Amino acid sequence: MSDRNHLNGSEATSARTERGQQTRERILDSAARLFYVKGVGSTTLDDVRAASSTSKSQLYDHFPDKTTLIHAVIDVQSRSVLAREAGRLKGVRNLSGLRRWRDALVQSNMLHDGSYGCALGAMSSELSDNDERSREALAAAFRTWQQLLVETLTRLRDLGVLTSDFDPRKLGTGLLAALQGGYILAQNGHSPELMADALDMALDRIETFADR
Amino acid sequence: MSDRNHLNGSEATSARTERGQQTRERILDSAARLFYVKGVGSTTLDDVRAASSTSKSQLYDHFPDKTTLIHAVIDVQSRSVLAREAGRLKGVRNLSGLRRWRDALVQSNMLHDGSYGCALGAMSSELSDNDERSREALAAAFRTWQQLLVETLTRLRDLGVLTSDFDPRKLGTGLLAALQGGYILAQNGHSPELMADALDMALDRIETFADR
Repeated sequence: MSDRNHLNGSEATSARTERGQQTRERILDSAARLFYVKGVGSTTLDDVRAASSTSKSQLYDHFPDKTTLIHAVIDVQSRSVLAREAGRLKGVRNLSGLRRWRDALVQSNMLHDGSYGCALGAMSSELSDNDERSREALAAAFRTWQQLLVETLTRLRDLGVLTSDFDPRKLGTGLLAALQGGYILAQNGHSPELMADALDMALDRIETFADR
Repeated sequence: MSDRNHLNGSEATSARTERGQQTRERILDSAARLFYVKGVGSTTLDDVRAASSTSKSQLYDHFPDKTTLIHAVIDVQSRSVLAREAGRLKGVRNLSGLRRWRDALVQSNMLHDGSYGCALGAMSSELSDNDERSREALAAAFRTWQQLLVETLTRLRDLGVLTSDFDPRKLGTGLLAALQGGYILAQNGHSPELMADALDMALDRIETFADR
């Protein structure tokens, strides 16, 4: 408090803004984790408040209702998943690289025995039919994710690793669907091997286009 | 009421039992539809009561809590999906038959522009990490579904349609995952074509084992 009194007006505002930003991030972080582990419908604003150690008024200041919070979490989770995927896929220049992308996904899935599924897929399954804005935001994320896969397959074709005899868009969709279905089966069966089998089928299909 | 007075004891009991059974089915039917369209977490027992035109005490008589109702709905939906799949898959004796199975799924998905996804997949995504009994019941349904696909692929191999050069179990998992991922993408993008692309990738992979 005594420090505060020594700050001039703009420093005080900036300190308040920074504290507010930290609170906002703490709320988002807790909400993202609860939505992922418990599901969106089963998480109350009181759960979020308790997990983020915030007061009712702090929570309300940043997120006046649950829908606003959901949209912000979709934004955070989409950025996180897409940044991870972009990072892993950008360096893929051969079929071993694609297998390493698959291995990283299966390894992560094994860390919690298949539980929780894909943050984006699970929110989409729960929200798409009930909140159009959530559906659109998640659809945009999935389009970008599919596009990252299409770019990777196109790169492999341009490098001569794959022949020109396939439609990268359809194969990119198939690969993303195999991953999403793999998440569902692994979560349900507590069995990451099911995700591995799902991805292997897609990769085996892609390898039939290998230019030997 | 006057009719009732003319019934003897066992007829009265039987009439009560039949009415009770009808009420139970009406509740289950409404709950299954609400869980499918709104999601399990977002459906309250009051929603179910209103949709099934039952009183609080009637609902409570049949399902003392939401968890009991959820388990009963999983049972109903599993039987329904598995009966449909068993019926469609049992006659598949060539690759065109497998394509017809795919067409039927895509056609159903087009009826509501991809919405709602798979009744079992959506419940699994929402419930698997929060209720172990739900997860186990859904895992059993998914194992049976995968087994139906494995039996179909094994039959195609035994008929000489496919070579012996593949693992029916892994390919069955891949096919089921492609379908589940297809449901997720079609629901999210309001685009049944994404489910079609997902299934086509899996069927194209299976056809690489065609005995030509």
